[in-house]
Amino acid sequence: MKLHVPIGLRWSDLDAYGHVNNAAMLRLLEEARIQAFWVNDDAEEAVGGTTAVLDGRPGADTLTLIARQEIEYLAQIPYLRQPLDVQLWLGRLGGASLEVCYEVWSPLGMEPRTLYSRAATTIVLVDAATQRPRRISDHERAAWTPYVDEPVQFAKRG
Amino acid sequence: MKLHVPIGLRWSDLDAYGHVNNAAMLRLLEEARIQAFWVNDDAEEAVGGTTAVLDGRPGADTLTLIARQEIEYLAQIPYLRQPLDVQLWLGRLGGASLEVCYEVWSPLGMEPRTLYSRAATTIVLVDAATQRPRRISDHERAAWTPYVDEPVQFAKRG
Amino acid sequence: MKLHVPIGLRWSDLDAYGHVNNAAMLRLLEEARIQAFWVNDDAEEAVGGTTAVLDGRPGADTLTLIARQEIEYLAQIPYLRQPLDVQLWLGRLGGASLEVCYEVWSPLGMEPRTLYSRAATTIVLVDAATQRPRRISDHERAAWTPYVDEPVQFAKRG
Amino acid sequence: MKLHVPIGLRWSDLDAYGHVNNAAMLRLLEEARIQAFWVNDDAEEAVGGTTAVLDGRPGADTLTLIARQEIEYLAQIPYLRQPLDVQLWLGRLGGASLEVCYEVWSPLGMEPRTLYSRAATTIVLVDAATQRPRRISDHERAAWTPYVDEPVQFAKRG
Repeated sequence: MKLHVPIGLRWSDLDAYGHVNNAAMLRLLEEARIQAFWVNDDAEEAVGGTTAVLDGRPGADTLTLIARQEIEYLAQIPYLRQPLDVQLWLGRLGGASLEVCYEVWSPLGMEPRTLYSRAATTIVLVDAATQRPRRISDHERAAWTPYVDEPVQFAKRG
Repeated sequence: MKLHVPIGLRWSDLDAYGHVNNAAMLRLLEEARIQAFWVNDDAEEAVGGTTAVLDGRPGADTLTLIARQEIEYLAQIPYLRQPLDVQLWLGRLGGASLEVCYEVWSPLGMEPRTLYSRAATTIVLVDAATQRPRRISDHERAAWTPYVDEPVQFAKRG
Repeated sequence: MKLHVPIGLRWSDLDAYGHVNNAAMLRLLEEARIQAFWVNDDAEEAVGGTTAVLDGRPGADTLTLIARQEIEYLAQIPYLRQPLDVQLWLGRLGGASLEVCYEVWSPLGMEPRTLYSRAATTIVLVDAATQRPRRISDHERAAWTPYVDEPVQFAKRG
Repeated sequence: MKLHVPIGLRWSDLDAYGHVNNAAMLRLLEEARIQAFWVNDDAEEAVGGTTAVLDGRPGADTLTLIARQEIEYLAQIPYLRQPLDVQLWLGRLGGASLEVCYEVWSPLGMEPRTLYSRAATTIVLVDAATQRPRRISDHERAAWTPYVDEPVQFAKRG
């Protein structure tokens, strides 16, 4: 199952060419990922509606470290008023790590639909006290399993 | 008349202390200002519903230069899922320049309401061809006049 | 006495117009301020060569909150390879707060010298444990007093 | 041959955990790449000392589009006063595209040396007038060939 997270652009995401900067794209993916799978305020509920998600607040027991990222840029993104349709899912659910996969689409309702980017982020769960990787709990695994789907296929590896 | 522009935070707006960074605040004000008074895509209509607004797209006839900014930070802003309620209006409408005033409030519906920040930005309209200031047109003045209100009062000047 | 802190631009400081973005300017000021007056790594010494400076590392006893900022933009800044010459000093040294003043100049050695911007930041020292303002210590006051100079004069207040 | 480009961190590169943010890393790579291979100001000479490099200034004849990026994060980067030692080279020099490879090392002179990150960026040269890919010229190829080396090897692909 894929989650659709609407992510609004900011004028400051544009670079000197008037398109979304390549590094700003990682901010957009980060924001979608956090909105989808993390608890960050007192709502204690993420976009997916599950309550067994990560607690990303400073002082939380678990840190989430980024181990790798891969992004393919398929089309340039202009400034858009309507939020991008960021689709994300889990390409892999390992012992202490998971892979978040993304497709960044043009805003819902804007035709024709354009796939701007595809990407993947590998995340390692780290115990904040010991600073060592810790296993995904049964609770987390049960909450995340519905979002496991085929890993994103990259077309441009050398 | 004051415009209310909802501006969502991003995780990346936080600094190492877990609060919205002082410089990120200017990005939020910029975004509110652009959504309120600029045309940036093919919609040709800004939040206020007027159509006589500035064209901020690269290649437009007018550049908008920032001449000054002043910001008072009244309360720290944590990560919030709900968008901030950025209220903005024009504190002054001069010959070739205008002053945008802002109050940054906690999200609508979140009680008690907190005023996080107040700010003002002076903008000069510049002719892109000559690179010299140009006068506000009658059309623009008519469109903007409803949003003129008392300039923001700063309390913390030394 | 004014400190000269060389601050390098980044390509990503430019906006869609090809000039340093107004919000990026606050990042540059922040960086100059931190390099001048804060300890942030194990060097325990700031640009000024004093050792009685603030400890800005997470977990430090004192937080430094930004209470206000004011910036005048006098000339647009293009991308420059050579670092800007950011001059900074203290315009006021109060009980629990201080005002950092800045002038942002074109790179040393680049003629003619251009003053791009002038700015001021009011900082409040806050006890991390109690989250309340705390007084500037005698040690800090002695270390900072040599850098006290006339407050920056702003020319564009409405 | 690998180029060594010193890239200074900024306080604003840190996230709420006090380490260099994953997206900020792309800004650092971008900055190193631009300093190494692009002309951006009137110096018309890049770090490598060659003069046959890309002109990245707005209005230039060639746009450089990012087609893909891949980054492995091997160790967290704290705030450091000394610039990172970003080593970069070309892993591939194709018809209309090239691959820039990077290793991000701890500052020169800081022992032990730590490899923080490895990465690669695929860049396509696009004719600004036609918006279509254009071939690498003989002049560019001659200037860049000395920097061609083995492509970076990624260890963490799923």
